[in-house]
Amino acid sequence: MAQRLASWASPRFVRRWASTMNPARRDPDATSAPAALPAASATSHNLPRAFFVDPDIHRRDLERLFLGHWIVAGHVASIPRQGDYFLYDLGVESFVISRGERDAVHACVNVCRHRGSRVAIEEYGHCRELVCPMHAWTYAQDGKLVAAPNMPPDFDRDSLGLLRAHVEVVSGVIFLCLDAPPDVAPLRRDIEAALAQYDFAHTRIAYHRRYLCPANWKLIQQCFLELHASVGSFPEMCRVMLKSETAATGDPSLHRKYEAFAAAWQRDANRQPIAASHTTADRALDYTCRREPIRPGFATQSETGAAIAPLLGSQTASDGGFAVIRVLASWIVVCADYAVIVRLTPLEPQVTEIDVTWLVRTSAVEGADYDAPRLSWLWRANVERVLKLASDNQLGVNATRYLPGPFAADEAEIGTWVAWYLARLA
Amino acid sequence: MAQRLASWASPRFVRRWASTMNPARRDPDATSAPAALPAASATSHNLPRAFFVDPDIHRRDLERLFLGHWIVAGHVASIPRQGDYFLYDLGVESFVISRGERDAVHACVNVCRHRGSRVAIEEYGHCRELVCPMHAWTYAQDGKLVAAPNMPPDFDRDSLGLLRAHVEVVSGVIFLCLDAPPDVAPLRRDIEAALAQYDFAHTRIAYHRRYLCPANWKLIQQCFLELHASVGSFPEMCRVMLKSETAATGDPSLHRKYEAFAAAWQRDANRQPIAASHTTADRALDYTCRREPIRPGFATQSETGAAIAPLLGSQTASDGGFAVIRVLASWIVVCADYAVIVRLTPLEPQVTEIDVTWLVRTSAVEGADYDAPRLSWLWRANVERVLKLASDNQLGVNATRYLPGPFAADEAEIGTWVAWYLARLA
Amino acid sequence: MAQRLASWASPRFVRRWASTMNPARRDPDATSAPAALPAASATSHNLPRAFFVDPDIHRRDLERLFLGHWIVAGHVASIPRQGDYFLYDLGVESFVISRGERDAVHACVNVCRHRGSRVAIEEYGHCRELVCPMHAWTYAQDGKLVAAPNMPPDFDRDSLGLLRAHVEVVSGVIFLCLDAPPDVAPLRRDIEAALAQYDFAHTRIAYHRRYLCPANWKLIQQCFLELHASVGSFPEMCRVMLKSETAATGDPSLHRKYEAFAAAWQRDANRQPIAASHTTADRALDYTCRREPIRPGFATQSETGAAIAPLLGSQTASDGGFAVIRVLASWIVVCADYAVIVRLTPLEPQVTEIDVTWLVRTSAVEGADYDAPRLSWLWRANVERVLKLASDNQLGVNATRYLPGPFAADEAEIGTWVAWYLARLA
Ligand code: FES
Ligand code: FES
Ligand code: FES
Repeated sequence: MAQRLASWASPRFVRRWASTMNPARRDPDATSAPAALPAASATSHNLPRAFFVDPDIHRRDLERLFLGHWIVAGHVASIPRQGDYFLYDLGVESFVISRGERDAVHACVNVCRHRGSRVAIEEYGHCRELVCPMHAWTYAQDGKLVAAPNMPPDFDRDSLGLLRAHVEVVSGVIFLCLDAPPDVAPLRRDIEAALAQYDFAHTRIAYHRRYLCPANWKLIQQCFLELHASVGSFPEMCRVMLKSETAATGDPSLHRKYEAFAAAWQRDANRQPIAASHTTADRALDYTCRREPIRPGFATQSETGAAIAPLLGSQTASDGGFAVIRVLASWIVVCADYAVIVRLTPLEPQVTEIDVTWLVRTSAVEGADYDAPRLSWLWRANVERVLKLASDNQLGVNATRYLPGPFAADEAEIGTWVAWYLARLA
Repeated sequence: MAQRLASWASPRFVRRWASTMNPARRDPDATSAPAALPAASATSHNLPRAFFVDPDIHRRDLERLFLGHWIVAGHVASIPRQGDYFLYDLGVESFVISRGERDAVHACVNVCRHRGSRVAIEEYGHCRELVCPMHAWTYAQDGKLVAAPNMPPDFDRDSLGLLRAHVEVVSGVIFLCLDAPPDVAPLRRDIEAALAQYDFAHTRIAYHRRYLCPANWKLIQQCFLELHASVGSFPEMCRVMLKSETAATGDPSLHRKYEAFAAAWQRDANRQPIAASHTTADRALDYTCRREPIRPGFATQSETGAAIAPLLGSQTASDGGFAVIRVLASWIVVCADYAVIVRLTPLEPQVTEIDVTWLVRTSAVEGADYDAPRLSWLWRANVERVLKLASDNQLGVNATRYLPGPFAADEAEIGTWVAWYLARLA
Repeated sequence: MAQRLASWASPRFVRRWASTMNPARRDPDATSAPAALPAASATSHNLPRAFFVDPDIHRRDLERLFLGHWIVAGHVASIPRQGDYFLYDLGVESFVISRGERDAVHACVNVCRHRGSRVAIEEYGHCRELVCPMHAWTYAQDGKLVAAPNMPPDFDRDSLGLLRAHVEVVSGVIFLCLDAPPDVAPLRRDIEAALAQYDFAHTRIAYHRRYLCPANWKLIQQCFLELHASVGSFPEMCRVMLKSETAATGDPSLHRKYEAFAAAWQRDANRQPIAASHTTADRALDYTCRREPIRPGFATQSETGAAIAPLLGSQTASDGGFAVIRVLASWIVVCADYAVIVRLTPLEPQVTEIDVTWLVRTSAVEGADYDAPRLSWLWRANVERVLKLASDNQLGVNATRYLPGPFAADEAEIGTWVAWYLARLA
């Protein structure tokens, strides 16, 4: 479809747009070679309409960002035994993510190398080998073609295994990258540091919800960015997070209280360092990773502040903080007693899947140790608010008369992310 | 999207087509400059397939006709008090139509100037100011930005109000025009003359139906044109309107009877003049406005001919006539005792909304003074017949082998309208 | 829409692709004039993604193959009396197929020559003349315009009849071709020979099912090709057909048993010859026509092998065989006692209608002579399996990373068909 790429989505267009977003760069050479493009540190205005509606830009988002960056596919808790697998469908692409020999996790493109049927049909399953339903071509968990009926003797079986995505498992989170993967080392180092005390790899799935949101994934991404930056309108988050309440009320005395609270929490020698946001110098990787305190007296992100599940890992008491990690468009929130993975998957220019998984300690028993409605209260509320806000935002930007407006002071993180997005897309 | 405009929808194409539609103009200079294009008074054949299916022509219809001409948005009866508003969604565009200070009616583009959310979400509402649900930018009813949190001191608030459409209220009907509006004076003069005795501004909504019709708006427009010209197949209309029955039967004695009846009705000194169809010389405005008699003994357009609601305005008895006004693609029918507004809104090339509102005297009480099923009988029937005819017409013109055929003698008004449409689109 | 034809669907592209599919033809002149293109006897690999998803290739499939080749529209059993008609909708096209005077079968384009409404609305009906619902233009069954109200005296009625498709009725099957029809003589000769003993024209409809399959018609076509070639996974077919069971198990002793059984069946002097597959030299016609034995002891394709309806035509006993005919993308299976017509109709690139009709002897009485569930058991199962396999195949080929793989030895017929398809499309 490359021939059909609209001028909107051409590298030249995106570069030109990126340059106009950064006032310092409005010079006549703005459209010169990509190598000469300095990183705009942040854009001052939101993206124009085409980025939220155009199918060619959507395809480019998928190719450049979702197939060429590390993305969260899921958690090893979904495939505890050898032979377990689950499917991750990303627009028209489908991956089989499975546990093979010696605990290795594999991600194969779910397309038979014979006549192209899906090999795995069910969303979750267990099998020794993957057998295509059409003509029984048979693949090992790692994609190797092990049987193909009626093929000639000189048939080159080795070249006809399932295509494979790169896989990295970091603290139990399964990351995949279909094309040339950026170096995963910084991501691994920062996540392992932030999650050290939680033993996140040894958790199990307690609850799961999946939403279809009628909005472009970037509008949803922006809503989550401001949810975590404590911007916008999220009453449940304000009730739990002192930082959010501070931002929402704009009350200066609350602000001083929060500053003192956060500083004291961070000084404590027993606390993990708060990692900074991170974009590698070549813009290949986009993630943030940090730990923050919740609210005086709060052990976890729950309605009352009390723990709502057994503590994770080696903790004997909550330190009152939680970790929040964003990798591209997915979020991992780990509190003392439970965790949430929010995975964003673009399906169409105006349709995005939001998959939300709650995890608890492996030994926790539902009913006795935790209760799914209480466990999921905050993040169901947050996701459902994002869903409504992003949908109404999409309806607005669909209008031909939509004009991108200026970001406010507390939206700096969104401006930074938009600049990264434009540079990476170019 | 201008780059994608298909050749079908180019001004050159439309001009060429317009020229071939008019036999007198099949000369080699037919495609010269638009200024040189004389108005074809009528086309002899219907439009070709592309005009009913092509998304680029659809976009051009919306831009040129629905955003650049006066269109019916609704009636002031929907927003009786200051602070009331309703939304009018026109394809991807959305307008907030509200009553502000000193009874002024405003129409703002329903897109926040910050990050583009819809500002008003509910279809009907009441509020002092419009507050965006995302970050609380706050607008007055006239669109002025009155508050925006966290913006820098030098922030130019004045330039970031909601975009506004032009609004004219004529006899209670709210007309809007987003882009350069044509002079509204002729429209106002003719409508006010036709509706003088009905005091149409002081009515209230008695009943409302909304339909989605799977047809291009121009096919529906053509059906309504022939409904009012008494062509085609509309049995309920024939039962009520003598002119329709005359046309349907083709009976010469009925024709003579109708001619005598209409002439007598028109001669009566107490009757309003019958206004002629009207297209301004520069083709900017397209509307018709006339008064006609119903049928001997009929006070209104009802099943029996008897009035079915209290008389409107200053009337003490029905004069046996009614007014019918078309502005672009919407129709206003006002009888002695009730009125109907039929508003056509193109949503997609093959999907059109038909919104139908019945109005009665402000003081009329449902159950006591009128009965919604009886009140709505004729126009529900008419609209539902149009809906079925236009849908089957759309299925036919979708066929690649559809060939536009010649108009019959009684379809002259459609040929005239098609010529106007092509000239206005060019 | 010719201007929008993607390069995928250009004749040049299709020729180039056809040439790379055939290893012997990978020479630098591969893209020279179409006249120089030798027929590739078979392709070695499946088609690439665009052929299963691209709307321009889809349009080309419809124009070249479905409107320019003989296709199965139905069976005369649907229109037993003069004046009967049924509609055949093929994507956006619609045909009225009717029985006119002297038993003639007509197929008219279902688009009024006036303003393009569908003339016939109901899927099945009976009428003396076709009267358009909009303005009553009236057409004879053969399409001739016989009345048009309000047209001028010099109106050229003869040039405004309904457009007509070519029609041929062969053994009761109604074939139509909208554009330049290939010579039907070979098709007629082979079908009449294969069906001689069944008197297929004198049957009636016993049961009918219609399916919408979310797959490109060519994927469904390939599934049916292998169903009849006894490839793939069709358990019910294996239970009934010895050839299918042989292929599925790959058991050599079963293979020898089948060979002996088939040879003996064919040697019997009372048996009809097994006609060969057939593609005319100029590639204009694509059909196959053959008779085969079922399984020792089986009179028909039923669960037990016993007849499940009165024998067709002049037969006094089943000869243990059945006829199977494919014309483009439709299949006709005629057993001793019942028949099935499976008609494939592409609606959109990824949506295909599968219409299945079961027929029995005209005199057979439901309940007494046959039972619809038993009658339809095998072919409902076969069609539903194809539907599932083709849907999963479509999901696979939708992936941007789908790579067409090599055909196996038993898929030769598919490779041959793909080569024909590419040559015909070019
Ligand atoms: S498509 Fe998978 S084995 Fe044939
Ligand atoms: S989008 Fe309206 S206030 Fe932010
Ligand atoms: S469209 Fe058929 S008679 Fe007018």
